[in-house]
Amino acid sequence: MIGTFTISDIGLRLRRGEISPVEITRECLSRIEKQNPALNAFITVTGDPALRDAAMAEAEILNGQWRGPLHGIPIALKDLIDTAGVWTTAGSELFERRLPGEDAEIVRRLREAGAIIVGKNNLHEFAYGASSLISYFGEIYNPWDPGHITGGSSGGSAAAVAAGMVCAAIGTDTAGSIREPASLCGCVGIKPTYGRVSSRGVFPLSASLDHVGPLTTSVKDAAIVLQAIAGYDQQDTTTADVAVADYVGALREDARPLRVGVLRDHFFAELDPDVASAMEHALLGIGTLVAEVKEIRLEVPTDRALQAAESYAVHAENINQTPEFYQPETLRRIRTGEKVSAAEYIVKRRELEQERCRIARIFAEVDLLVTPTTPIPAPAIADLKKNPETLRPAELTLLRNTRPFNVWGLPAISIPCGFTQNGLPLGLQIAGPHWREDLVFRLAYAYEQATAWHKRRTGV
Amino acid sequence: MIGTFTISDIGLRLRRGEISPVEITRECLSRIEKQNPALNAFITVTGDPALRDAAMAEAEILNGQWRGPLHGIPIALKDLIDTAGVWTTAGSELFERRLPGEDAEIVRRLREAGAIIVGKNNLHEFAYGASSLISYFGEIYNPWDPGHITGGSSGGSAAAVAAGMVCAAIGTDTAGSIREPASLCGCVGIKPTYGRVSSRGVFPLSASLDHVGPLTTSVKDAAIVLQAIAGYDQQDTTTADVAVADYVGALREDARPLRVGVLRDHFFAELDPDVASAMEHALLGIGTLVAEVKEIRLEVPTDRALQAAESYAVHAENINQTPEFYQPETLRRIRTGEKVSAAEYIVKRRELEQERCRIARIFAEVDLLVTPTTPIPAPAIADLKKNPETLRPAELTLLRNTRPFNVWGLPAISIPCGFTQNGLPLGLQIAGPHWREDLVFRLAYAYEQATAWHKRRTGV
Repeated sequence: MIGTFTISDIGLRLRRGEISPVEITRECLSRIEKQNPALNAFITVTGDPALRDAAMAEAEILNGQWRGPLHGIPIALKDLIDTAGVWTTAGSELFERRLPGEDAEIVRRLREAGAIIVGKNNLHEFAYGASSLISYFGEIYNPWDPGHITGGSSGGSAAAVAAGMVCAAIGTDTAGSIREPASLCGCVGIKPTYGRVSSRGVFPLSASLDHVGPLTTSVKDAAIVLQAIAGYDQQDTTTADVAVADYVGALREDARPLRVGVLRDHFFAELDPDVASAMEHALLGIGTLVAEVKEIRLEVPTDRALQAAESYAVHAENINQTPEFYQPETLRRIRTGEKVSAAEYIVKRRELEQERCRIARIFAEVDLLVTPTTPIPAPAIADLKKNPETLRPAELTLLRNTRPFNVWGLPAISIPCGFTQNGLPLGLQIAGPHWREDLVFRLAYAYEQATAWHKRRTGV
Repeated sequence: MIGTFTISDIGLRLRRGEISPVEITRECLSRIEKQNPALNAFITVTGDPALRDAAMAEAEILNGQWRGPLHGIPIALKDLIDTAGVWTTAGSELFERRLPGEDAEIVRRLREAGAIIVGKNNLHEFAYGASSLISYFGEIYNPWDPGHITGGSSGGSAAAVAAGMVCAAIGTDTAGSIREPASLCGCVGIKPTYGRVSSRGVFPLSASLDHVGPLTTSVKDAAIVLQAIAGYDQQDTTTADVAVADYVGALREDARPLRVGVLRDHFFAELDPDVASAMEHALLGIGTLVAEVKEIRLEVPTDRALQAAESYAVHAENINQTPEFYQPETLRRIRTGEKVSAAEYIVKRRELEQERCRIARIFAEVDLLVTPTTPIPAPAIADLKKNPETLRPAELTLLRNTRPFNVWGLPAISIPCGFTQNGLPLGLQIAGPHWREDLVFRLAYAYEQATAWHKRRTGV
């Protein structure tokens, strides 16, 4: 009945009146009901309000009041994004019964665009991890093979999209938390430019590095969702008043004039053989699409003190008063920021600004940068739980290639680019200049259209 | 020969060919030679390069290549503003022989506008004080009465302008360091909106609170100089890409529609009787110029931990390696930031952002805010040196009314508004909404034109 589960297809049929927002929302809710028990991708499902919103969208569309491509489209939110009157837990016991009074700014924008919020996704507790194995609401499982992690911290969002439970989900990304689970779950995930999307009402991990963005099953859908949430928020001083391009329009632009830089060294070190071979194929493919592919060598920022200090600042009061409400490993991670002095922090913050200025110069030479999104595919859960020392190093490896783009503040997308011999998905990361999500989308779309990776679906 | 020593008058006569840049520069240098020994307002005088620049300006103007209202105008710089190949000491032994390789961005802009840099002004060491009694290069004396302080930290800049040694000087203001000496020395000084003027190449005191701006003898001159240095600097991430208004044009706009808020409480507490009476007269005068004057009550930020932490971060390495190159009191002040943790700092930084958002709402009710610039006139130097505990509290009192505007990031000017019975000048502070220096200039100019305070000159 529904056909392919993309925003662009469904949106077209919704607008034509071939299907209704209520039908599509019911379909979503029924898929969640069926698939979620095996994956644990949702903490809260907002069935009744979603159906009410869908009925309203239906009436509006019948009335000719079409709000745009998200009108009547079911979307899920990572459960650290505030929703008025709906639990927003951040994956933690501390916030088990936290009821925000107001929607986050991006939720307001999504509702304004007509999107239907169907639920809140499970996540790595307080977004402080890349496995989604640590959450008060339980582990999250990869739809391609539930013996493997989804990645994280937006693991529930990636699983929900990959399993087709929703058309799109909103995640957050401080070191890779959108792109890494997108890569590990075979979907599309974009971290926009730092300052591009409001994070007002989104629980912070590290305000200097936090980014909000969509996970979807296609590049076009990512463009549609980002278009709805992007843009200056006067009440969020981390956002900037920079014009937002026509992202969907950008997909029609020719990729052939583009010059692409491949970031070797750091980003290609110790790759899993399947990742290495997928990347070389991807680069050959890209070579046929663009004007030039060349190797780029860069110094890569790897320091984590800034994130540690900012996370500690967010949690200091709560971890002193009620440490028992945190998972022990989360507590340990947050406490790594306890000893950082203001002077050290200020120096790191200045270095961050300098890195963001410095990286901009590379775009005199190339238009875009590409890397593997992760050096390895989704690890097996059993391997990560062998002993308490296994998890963190594996997570740091998984974030190795995504983290520098948070420091640089560059827009970066992960799109499917192949599979391991065992059928686990792999991701290609494409990054562009500050504020040029449109350029990133342009190459991502050209690559997606030239390949079939995104068409393969999970067996769930 | 020269007539009134304002940029607007001299500029007109320069353009008409009635006087030449070389003549005016010679006049400046001769005034400095005569007056500086008594005031100690300059650390370095750049006579030869200034005369060379003046000769070039002269040739350009004769050639019809007029660069604008600063062409051929002598200007001085606070000695923490980098000048290529000219000592830039920050008033400290540590930098006694520091030779920057490059001009600060604002110096580049001033030269581009045709200004002639005639020297570098003495200042309170590293800008960490409001008296200008602490400098490796000696105390600075008030041109109205050398037994009194100039205020600071831009004390040398204020003294140089007030004594007519230069038409304008550039200062910096982290808690009042432009406005307070302008007030105490009877000149005009404006701290623009946070982010309005580049501070690249200006030695920092506290990057979140630092502002660069001009001191002049008239409001129009302040508008002319600010126009030349204001505007986005891609390489300074603290600046913002916000359009700069036509400041000189704004002076012609009618002040009558303006609504003015008087900030009582904090800003009027324990005023010196002469200040109190000058203020009530000023408010009556403003009442005849504008649509409405009403009382406004606000919570006022007074915390200094942010500044302490940021200053410590700047100096940490040097004060650990070579503390002997700092004046002992400066060392003591810098070390107050040593124990601040990153978490505390991050909280303070967020509060700063919130204050900047919150204060913006007041401008739904009024267009401008007014206060006395300082609660007291320039203290006698002898009183401040009675014992080691006298100085700091007096400085904090002198900055009490200016500091909140650094936190809020609002543009704020100090203009002459009267004299004490002993003939010391007093200042009126006018502040406006973010990015609206034009509004501030509009009322300041209307008030200046309606009064004669700015016409009185020092006897030096």
